[in-house]
Amino acid sequence: MASNQHVKLFGMVGSPIVARAEIALKLKGVEYEYVNESFSNKSDDLLKYNPIHKKVPVVLHNGKPICESLVIVEYVDEVWTGYPILPSDPYHRAQARFWSKFIDDKVFPAVYKAAWNPNEKEREKGAEEVREVLTILENELKGKFFNGDSVGLLDIAALFIAFWLPLLQEAGGLDLYGGEKYPKLEKWGHDILNHPVIEGVLPPRDLVLTFFKTRFQSISASK
Amino acid sequence: MASNQHVKLFGMVGSPIVARAEIALKLKGVEYEYVNESFSNKSDDLLKYNPIHKKVPVVLHNGKPICESLVIVEYVDEVWTGYPILPSDPYHRAQARFWSKFIDDKVFPAVYKAAWNPNEKEREKGAEEVREVLTILENELKGKFFNGDSVGLLDIAALFIAFWLPLLQEAGGLDLYGGEKYPKLEKWGHDILNHPVIEGVLPPRDLVLTFFKTRFQSISASK
Repeated sequence: MASNQHVKLFGMVGSPIVARAEIALKLKGVEYEYVNESFSNKSDDLLKYNPIHKKVPVVLHNGKPICESLVIVEYVDEVWTGYPILPSDPYHRAQARFWSKFIDDKVFPAVYKAAWNPNEKEREKGAEEVREVLTILENELKGKFFNGDSVGLLDIAALFIAFWLPLLQEAGGLDLYGGEKYPKLEKWGHDILNHPVIEGVLPPRDLVLTFFKTRFQSISASK
Repeated sequence: MASNQHVKLFGMVGSPIVARAEIALKLKGVEYEYVNESFSNKSDDLLKYNPIHKKVPVVLHNGKPICESLVIVEYVDEVWTGYPILPSDPYHRAQARFWSKFIDDKVFPAVYKAAWNPNEKEREKGAEEVREVLTILENELKGKFFNGDSVGLLDIAALFIAFWLPLLQEAGGLDLYGGEKYPKLEKWGHDILNHPVIEGVLPPRDLVLTFFKTRFQSISASK
């Protein structure tokens, strides 16, 4: 359909949120130019194309910017044919959207609180919340992937849990699970990290580990 | 399509978030049964159908629950034909989704901070944020409605600004705009409040005013 048109992705190597946009584009086989931004030096283009949030990812498609990772994933699914990222049934689409929102509204804030909150009691509360949301997701996982037999919107939204979360724990010496087991999520994590498209999008482990370690050190230095 | 099937809406009279679901159903001409919940006494059905957030609105369609107001609006748009709530063009759909998310992520938190934060300095910062987000929306409003000539997803998402926000200010004796003018938003507010479907969904002004006044009083009493 629009597959031979010009696509640029403004991203940041290592970001789990940018990975969502990359995975969507790659699942559809869309060719794109990657523009790597950095926290400390955002390009004029990024500020022009996402003036509201000034954040990656931004997909520029024929000169038109699309912002917000989940909005981008839905856009990519609607514009390019081929691999279906959202289910075709409206109820299942609603479920995928509901749970993707849950990841952003509940999982990320819990993890952030557990890892970075300056107050130890708050970090403990955060860890409890992490276990709660993981238990909820563990119960929600019915097939090989959240989307069934193939990777879909929610799998893409939840990928942080499979790849970045273990690295965050390693970097900070955290034990957020506190002995809890999530066997279905673990199996899902294994499968999704070995998915050919997703494997190709993941940043080097060491880069993410170093990024998290540096952040833990800078927080501990500022105490 | 599915218009003669059984639909229940679990709501709460006066809620701007529930109004989104109601407007979507009414724009499509869907008949539904309204189940009124209360903060202090949520029904077993509500807890069963939205066990994650335990919140209204929930739409129950042929026994299947759909939660989260914007997810519901998209679901309704996909299941029932007739009035199109989202634009058909993927780029415009992405824009409508982006800005609806902006309302939830930026406008509501700013208003809450400005109205209810216990710290006066924070309330002042909140009011500043309210003016910022309203200025952004003022610049974004290009037609009669955000959706163009007809009411769409973003108009439904933003309705709080037209109806509830002035009542909140009146109830709390607030002046969040601080002399700033938003002529396009004002005109939009007038038009949307007089839209036949939306007019029919709005709760009585006095009810909302009393609700907000009671909340201001209970906060001031607990100081």
